[in-house]
Amino acid sequence: MSASTTGPAAPAPPVHPAWLPDAALAPLGAGHVLLLTGEDESATDPVLPTVEAELRRATAAHGGRLSLRHGGDPGADVRLVLATTAAAPPPPPTGAADATPDDRPWPALVRRVLDDPGDLPPESFRLVRDAGVTVVVASSGPGLLHGLHHVVREAAAHPGRTDRAPADEVHAPAQAVRMLDHWDNVDVHDVMGQVERGYAGGSIFYDRGALRTDLSRAEEYARLLGSIGINRVGLNNVNVHAREARLLTDGLPDVARLAAVFRPHGIRVHLSVSFAAPMTVGGLPTADPLDEDVRRWWAEATAAVYRAVPDFGGYVVKADSEGQPGPFAYGRDHADGANLLARALAPFGGTVFWRAFVYDHHQDWRDRSTDRARAAYDHFAPLDGRFDENVVLQVKHGPLDFQTREAVSPVVAAMPRTRLAVELQVTQEYTGQQRHACYLAPWWREILDFRPWGEGATVADVAIGNGPGGRPGALVAVSNVGDDPFWTGHPLAQANLYAFGRLAWDPTLTPETVLDEWAGLTFGPDPEVRAGLHAVLDDSWLTYEGYTAPLGVGFMVQPGHHYGPAVDGYEYSPWGTYHFADRDGIGVDRTRATGTGYTGQYPAPWRDVYEDLATCPDELLLFFHHVPYGHVLHSGSTVIQHVYDTHFAGVARVEELVATWASLAGRVPGDVHARVTELLDEQLRSAREWRDQLTTYFFRKSGVPDARGRRIY
Amino acid sequence: MSASTTGPAAPAPPVHPAWLPDAALAPLGAGHVLLLTGEDESATDPVLPTVEAELRRATAAHGGRLSLRHGGDPGADVRLVLATTAAAPPPPPTGAADATPDDRPWPALVRRVLDDPGDLPPESFRLVRDAGVTVVVASSGPGLLHGLHHVVREAAAHPGRTDRAPADEVHAPAQAVRMLDHWDNVDVHDVMGQVERGYAGGSIFYDRGALRTDLSRAEEYARLLGSIGINRVGLNNVNVHAREARLLTDGLPDVARLAAVFRPHGIRVHLSVSFAAPMTVGGLPTADPLDEDVRRWWAEATAAVYRAVPDFGGYVVKADSEGQPGPFAYGRDHADGANLLARALAPFGGTVFWRAFVYDHHQDWRDRSTDRARAAYDHFAPLDGRFDENVVLQVKHGPLDFQTREAVSPVVAAMPRTRLAVELQVTQEYTGQQRHACYLAPWWREILDFRPWGEGATVADVAIGNGPGGRPGALVAVSNVGDDPFWTGHPLAQANLYAFGRLAWDPTLTPETVLDEWAGLTFGPDPEVRAGLHAVLDDSWLTYEGYTAPLGVGFMVQPGHHYGPAVDGYEYSPWGTYHFADRDGIGVDRTRATGTGYTGQYPAPWRDVYEDLATCPDELLLFFHHVPYGHVLHSGSTVIQHVYDTHFAGVARVEELVATWASLAGRVPGDVHARVTELLDEQLRSAREWRDQLTTYFFRKSGVPDARGRRIY
Repeated sequence: MSASTTGPAAPAPPVHPAWLPDAALAPLGAGHVLLLTGEDESATDPVLPTVEAELRRATAAHGGRLSLRHGGDPGADVRLVLATTAAAPPPPPTGAADATPDDRPWPALVRRVLDDPGDLPPESFRLVRDAGVTVVVASSGPGLLHGLHHVVREAAAHPGRTDRAPADEVHAPAQAVRMLDHWDNVDVHDVMGQVERGYAGGSIFYDRGALRTDLSRAEEYARLLGSIGINRVGLNNVNVHAREARLLTDGLPDVARLAAVFRPHGIRVHLSVSFAAPMTVGGLPTADPLDEDVRRWWAEATAAVYRAVPDFGGYVVKADSEGQPGPFAYGRDHADGANLLARALAPFGGTVFWRAFVYDHHQDWRDRSTDRARAAYDHFAPLDGRFDENVVLQVKHGPLDFQTREAVSPVVAAMPRTRLAVELQVTQEYTGQQRHACYLAPWWREILDFRPWGEGATVADVAIGNGPGGRPGALVAVSNVGDDPFWTGHPLAQANLYAFGRLAWDPTLTPETVLDEWAGLTFGPDPEVRAGLHAVLDDSWLTYEGYTAPLGVGFMVQPGHHYGPAVDGYEYSPWGTYHFADRDGIGVDRTRATGTGYTGQYPAPWRDVYEDLATCPDELLLFFHHVPYGHVLHSGSTVIQHVYDTHFAGVARVEELVATWASLAGRVPGDVHARVTELLDEQLRSAREWRDQLTTYFFRKSGVPDARGRRIY
Repeated sequence: MSASTTGPAAPAPPVHPAWLPDAALAPLGAGHVLLLTGEDESATDPVLPTVEAELRRATAAHGGRLSLRHGGDPGADVRLVLATTAAAPPPPPTGAADATPDDRPWPALVRRVLDDPGDLPPESFRLVRDAGVTVVVASSGPGLLHGLHHVVREAAAHPGRTDRAPADEVHAPAQAVRMLDHWDNVDVHDVMGQVERGYAGGSIFYDRGALRTDLSRAEEYARLLGSIGINRVGLNNVNVHAREARLLTDGLPDVARLAAVFRPHGIRVHLSVSFAAPMTVGGLPTADPLDEDVRRWWAEATAAVYRAVPDFGGYVVKADSEGQPGPFAYGRDHADGANLLARALAPFGGTVFWRAFVYDHHQDWRDRSTDRARAAYDHFAPLDGRFDENVVLQVKHGPLDFQTREAVSPVVAAMPRTRLAVELQVTQEYTGQQRHACYLAPWWREILDFRPWGEGATVADVAIGNGPGGRPGALVAVSNVGDDPFWTGHPLAQANLYAFGRLAWDPTLTPETVLDEWAGLTFGPDPEVRAGLHAVLDDSWLTYEGYTAPLGVGFMVQPGHHYGPAVDGYEYSPWGTYHFADRDGIGVDRTRATGTGYTGQYPAPWRDVYEDLATCPDELLLFFHHVPYGHVLHSGSTVIQHVYDTHFAGVARVEELVATWASLAGRVPGDVHARVTELLDEQLRSAREWRDQLTTYFFRKSGVPDARGRRIY
């Protein structure tokens, strides 16, 4: 593995193999493996050569042997067969009447499976195990690659298991679109740098204004993503600046190079585009979605994209949001805008991912009636049914902006006639910026399991297409990687990238299962390490919540970069993110009775559960209500005492993590141990800063002393 | 006049002439002017050609005539004569016995003056007026240039005056060093840009990494500075980054070019240097001031500077401050550090300006015993008497950082055996950033008039050299210009640059007098305009104070860029700038009795005046004391009601300014009127934001309603 350089003269540091170290490939490579494909199938299926390469790598690393197709006789020792449905089954033993038994157990099993493979959509695979032989069959390269990694993963998740019981399973992704968005800029942005909200160094794609010459890091990344089932990647920041807008035109050779990097791993690429591109790039006098020249421009530009990248996935659009251009400038709505691009993409099978993150970012903090949480619903719910079938409306999971705790967006329940993607944030913008250990899968588990109608379909169901409207959407997330040697800054943040891919494939997985897989793949079978990782990560999101903004109130971060506490940092800003703390109480009244009416955007029962102080869950109390500091929570504590207790407890928990991690010295690679140790120091410092600022702020404001008499400044 | 370009292809906008429009030169150019100098004197005195050029420009613009020396007979109509003491006096009328009277009044007057010019140090001049003729005499070009501009200024300040009464006055600068520091970077700095704390566009010296090719803007600037008596300019930011550190070595040709720009106007140039230069530029393993190689390196580097710029002024140094390197790294003190550079400069007559702005910028907000205000005194007062004679210790006027209201630094009274410069900030970092009209001369007047010992010498006296130690120091300020067409962003901010130069020359001038001069020069004799400018500017500093941080508490600005309100913006920061507001009260206890002991750094009577709540001036109350919101001020108001009243009044005053300025439409140039109108809009918006945030913050915290029931959010 080699890394691309980050500068003209900088030597590339060694790159961490993440969850695909050669050691993890033992289940593929320790024995004799047979790969069966159709004649010349590899010439037309770009993923099959990847399957072969993985098997070669595995067998080279572990002393096994790879045989291809069925030319010659691979012998009796084959214990793993990967086959496409196009492969010819091995012939039966010669001389049907000749009763010499075939001493090779695999041919009969392969014949059995290939004779009746069943319905195998492109990304799915069938795994059959019998008589000590495992056969993985898929109708195409992507399915076979997923099966290959399934075998790897199963072994890693259950290191001690010797269970070789017969099995016959079909595995298919829960949904067709599993996407990572990169907020990478081509040019280094004055404020946001090379990667917006990136906490892992530079971009693995771009370096100061140009596509990298050496894309080997991107190739390794594509391999990692392909192994967990990601099948779409957005190549550039949704805030599309001048240089990036030209990816759509002059930049197509760059897009084609990146598409070629991802294609062998079953991944299609997307571009974030600027709604103003017809003007800024195309030279037209307008970008009005109903203008005929504008439509023609998009049609022609899109045709050019498909000439360069025939399997291009489509566009990602942030329009009329935080300064990005959009249809509002022309008195059009977002259905007009999205359909404009959808119709340009439709002839080629492309999709537009249109973000619902639209709100007034020039809000007046004096005006308590305007509520940013309402914005996405207010803008989009009335448009339900107006979007073309190749539009996916991409909805942030919460109504604000990836805060550590938010209510689930009511848009999810409001648009049955629209394809909805739920957008998560793997990059830890508000959850410690990959300097704090914060395993996000438990949070995503809660979000995906939320039932917007109280019973019935979950958020995951809506994204998958099992919601009331039955329309398939997607799970999308913002990536967290960069050119850091550990990919993600914090080595343990790799678990978040892994978890997103796995949950996008199977949204019913538990965070513990996913962590077991990731830990086994990444660190091997040592049970102490596994236990230590669970100790550090399982409750890390709740720990982080404990020492940061309390009770769902959100936005107490430093303005701009969003790292570290600033209780009033956004209190008088134009961003619509307030807590309204005064000497008597705190929180945002979003009730219908006395507040902004946001609770009314939910269907029953939530519209009433959230409305009523008696039923509103503690963890979202300040998201929905303004209450006195003495208000008693369901937990029995007061709001102010809860603030004190969770902050002291959160820091104490981080102190424990430091000790836990220290105990793993010598059991995990030294570079990983050193980096995590260093970051835990920073996490502890930062957690104490949060604790001290929050407790001091609320003590100074409320005058209520800590019932337990701890140190407040 | 032409402007240098700000980019390769940007057409240069026309540049405003500031206080030297041709119209202002009428007193020089409307008649017949005679310039008398010694033979070949212009070849050795670089300022005399400037005097001649000014007279040519004036006579060309106003229909007058310039005669040189006394070759030929200039005739009887000469009414203004400028002469150096080296000039030969005109001969008496031929034939002493011949009683034909000389009908030309000027020769006799010139003879009289040149026969006994009196003691005229280089920068001074003598002005004699008699029989309708004015004669200005000086011993050198700089003095003559100052006299020339005196004539221009007098006429502008008193447009109606026809008083031609006889006069015989000698004018000399109050002090020898009148200096402007430029915080210009050669490279554009990632955070601070081309000019640190610059609010008027790019640098007039540098453009994106290089000295400008076209220095015509710098030439115009040098003319403006020379006209008001500035005689030193620091060419680069005191925060010396990598590129700028090399000005001292590779960059000498650039320094020489700039020196040649300033020299004809009587101005010597200085460089800000990095204390670590022996290592970063020189390649030595240390920058220890007691190391022999380090001494030799500075001696050789300095000799090279003087080879390139024989009249080089010396160095400016920010050491051990806000991340800049310094002697502390080697266990040395600041006298060791300053003397190192002083000894390198001494052979060439150079001076080192060593800044006293040294404090811990990694302070812990939890620690109330550490007090940034104490730092300069604590670091430097013990070193009194240890600095070489060519060291000037440059002390910010207040102990914190140019806040709108601060106590005067106690360092001014603490170091009689040290040359002290008082540093002011013309650039409006904390006073509206040249978007708010804020005339700073009234503030400087207060500072300069402050008597550190209660009676006797003032701050101005100490800077001049009339303090107890009798050592001459300097007045130094940070410049406010950039490549903006109006030089200073806000056209009215030109008055601050003008006022600094005039006060540095004569620290007894009143702000009103200075404004009269500036208004007359810049806008001509219209009395309505003059009255309007007084209405807008005279109390503008107090107005600004009114709507921003109250009662000397300081630092309620947005972190980083420092524009606009953020009451808690620095409250939990490492910068040592806190107000400690809680629900009961606010302010910093700096008393000896219960606080940080800072009051003890002052001599009597101030150590006691500030210590005692009963005598501490209202405007500095929160600088010295933590008091309840209900504390009654000497004014009779409570602290909280004072906050409400001054903020509402401040905004009301800005509203009046808008109307006042509107009434000047048609009376001042259209471009100036438009720019100021636009900026007053911003000032009003910003003042309202300050008012609303401050009143809301303190109402939420204190719970005390406004006694007058005005709107608080």
